Amino acid sequence: MTRKIYTDPGARLDSITRIERSLGEALSLTQGSDAPPGLVSAIRYAVLPGGGRIRPRLGLAVALACGDDEPALADAAAAAIELLHCASLVHDDLPCFDDASLRRGKPTVHKVYGEQLALLTGDALIVLAFQVLGTAASRSRAATLRLPALLGILAAAVGAPDGITAGQAWESEPEVTLSTYQRAKTGALFAAATAAGACAAGHQAATWRELGERLGEAYQVADDLRDVVASSAELGKPTGRDLVLGRPNAVHQLGLPAALQHLQQLVAQALAAIPPCPGAEALRAHILAEAGRLVPRELARPAA
Amino acid sequence: MTRKIYTDPGARLDSITRIERSLGEALSLTQGSDAPPGLVSAIRYAVLPGGGRIRPRLGLAVALACGDDEPALADAAAAAIELLHCASLVHDDLPCFDDASLRRGKPTVHKVYGEQLALLTGDALIVLAFQVLGTAASRSRAATLRLPALLGILAAAVGAPDGITAGQAWESEPEVTLSTYQRAKTGALFAAATAAGACAAGHQAATWRELGERLGEAYQVADDLRDVVASSAELGKPTGRDLVLGRPNAVHQLGLPAALQHLQQLVAQALAAIPPCPGAEALRAHILAEAGRLVPRELARPAA
Repeated sequence: MTRKIYTDPGARLDSITRIERSLGEALSLTQGSDAPPGLVSAIRYAVLPGGGRIRPRLGLAVALACGDDEPALADAAAAAIELLHCASLVHDDLPCFDDASLRRGKPTVHKVYGEQLALLTGDALIVLAFQVLGTAASRSRAATLRLPALLGILAAAVGAPDGITAGQAWESEPEVTLSTYQRAKTGALFAAATAAGACAAGHQAATWRELGERLGEAYQVADDLRDVVASSAELGKPTGRDLVLGRPNAVHQLGLPAALQHLQQLVAQALAAIPPCPGAEALRAHILAEAGRLVPRELARPAA
Repeated sequence: MTRKIYTDPGARLDSITRIERSLGEALSLTQGSDAPPGLVSAIRYAVLPGGGRIRPRLGLAVALACGDDEPALADAAAAAIELLHCASLVHDDLPCFDDASLRRGKPTVHKVYGEQLALLTGDALIVLAFQVLGTAASRSRAATLRLPALLGILAAAVGAPDGITAGQAWESEPEVTLSTYQRAKTGALFAAATAAGACAAGHQAATWRELGERLGEAYQVADDLRDVVASSAELGKPTGRDLVLGRPNAVHQLGLPAALQHLQQLVAQALAAIPPCPGAEALRAHILAEAGRLVPRELARPAA
């Protein structure tokens, strides 16, 4: 039944339910009678309600495609990836970076809780991601034996030399190639999502990275498209920010038609990169459905 | 030979060598051809040269007292604890918190590298701490099986509800009891150091927490003493900051003689809390030597 999760629209909810339940369990780890209420509240605010949960859903889709024989570990890996993503959003939005006011359709964490708690919220979310992983891994021998590799995959995706923090750090450098910047800032966590999904299900992680890398690139191009053509209401955050902040944007560099074509090529490359696995067909369907959602509403057309 | 590490002054160096080597290996994980040079440099600057390395030396002392049968894991745990400590210093020093200019006798990370890279440096150091642990744990089956517990110990020490970030978050609350604040802000990482040292050597971690908690309290009182009586040059950072920042300080609350007496009581309680272990005597010696170093030079007197 669960193997059909991505071909049955009713069952697709199940994947989201798994992620939200896992995130809820993670958040409960931050509570306690000795906890500072502001921080606990800010952490919750940063995670719920979520955005598209694109990365953890991708991770779970890969775990399912690989047999999902340790579902609690796959859920934890998915939650960890989302927590790390949320952490990066909270820190990116801070005044010293983007100074953003709006995120996921509501005021950013530092606008509501102040800069101090926003900074600590990001820190606590990074820690929580690893804690969730360790907690799930402690529940079975098979899960424990997969923990070092999983930990390594997630740490590499967010740390230096080429994870999210490195991607963000390139914004402080006088020069950077677009591909290096985007690979670290966006691609790293997508590649970690596919690698971690496979690893949590006991498959070789390395062969699954390319799928995540291509999807990360596709997501970045889609994000660039949305920044140019979507409405702020649709996006839940201001548009046109790349131009204002002087950030690289594929639409500014390639033009709109070429950027759209590039997005389609990346999705095709992603599909071609799916390694042999029991649930390849369902995974293909998941990726195609996601790719359809990536294109901004303003540009969506019937397929040729 | 290594079991005599704390009774032989020449061999004590060995413990520091182990920690610095382990930190050096950790830092090498942050380098790569695709790494942003500013971030890599700032991470290194935040870790080297260190302060007293009090927490990792305590962790290693406990691991040795417990037999140290997985020394690479103990070294990694010690390095992880120091990396988490360094991360908290970098973030605490930021303009939105203490806005500190001086740390360990040199300009703070944000004064040298700017606020953006300082924030990312803290993030990357948190990630690196867990990465180091995972890398060491992957090297042997025994180490792998200890990883979930070790990960849990370190995550709890820095996250919400009662780790370092929670301690720091109490500064944003209108009210907090001194003991709750200090237990999270300082005590948590000391308790993690003793628990992780024991866990890395295959001993029950829980029985080792009290030792760390008492030493953490002792360290906090010593820090309060130094803030009042030490010179800025001796300390490598400004003194008198607690009064300026309105932070609780044991000397302001108890007076100088009672604060000194409290420090001595805490050290005695710490010694009494050492669980039965093969190297209890050497550990006692380590703790007594450390306690002697805790008292500011201005207050040190021959023992009565």
